[in-house]
Amino acid sequence: MARVLTTRRYTWDEIAPEHVYPSVERQVVDGGHQTLVRYVYRRGAVFPVHSHPQEQITTVLTGRIEFQVDGVSVLLGPGETAVIPAGIPHGTSVVGDETVVTLNALSPRRTTHP
Amino acid sequence: MARVLTTRRYTWDEIAPEHVYPSVERQVVDGGHQTLVRYVYRRGAVFPVHSHPQEQITTVLTGRIEFQVDGVSVLLGPGETAVIPAGIPHGTSVVGDETVVTLNALSPRRTTHP
Repeated sequence: MARVLTTRRYTWDEIAPEHVYPSVERQVVDGGHQTLVRYVYRRGAVFPVHSHPQEQITTVLTGRIEFQVDGVSVLLGPGETAVIPAGIPHGTSVVGDETVVTLNALSPRRTTHP
Repeated sequence: MARVLTTRRYTWDEIAPEHVYPSVERQVVDGGHQTLVRYVYRRGAVFPVHSHPQEQITTVLTGRIEFQVDGVSVLLGPGETAVIPAGIPHGTSVVGDETVVTLNALSPRRTTHP
């Protein structure tokens, strides 16, 4: 496991975004025990169903997004959070016109970003 | 460790706040591997120096806050994040008049909330 020995400060505007899918960008901050990901989903964006060994806690900052989690629909808006257990298949799609921004906390730390 | 077996959805407005210090409130969502805490600090609020065995990733949503981390000052505003290693003494104080809202991701899951 990576060890974090000193405090690190990040400005999200200075973190290069990665284009993951059409209209989906993410930025990543890794700690030693966890990974924080900031997603920006534009109108119409879809993140296909996938799974990973990390537990995911997603908080919506703006916009509305639908999670399909193990075949169940979970709609999240601003000020809402979902805890998605490790290994559970999930995908997302933007609801409505507003750009969606989420913060996703993943633990343990992610070593690959599928 | 607590196991999270099904997806849980939370609305922060419905989570009872805990009054931790004068002008400091927090709300807590626990996963199995991590804990997400939403802090609201009013003008003048101070969170005394403390430490915990969890790594902490703090993201500022509104306002400006100064962290004293192991004696070093780290100023954070909206759109900024700090990774604070496990076990490092840290405290915070609000800078300016604006109410500060942060999301703190802690890992491993917190079992006590000092």
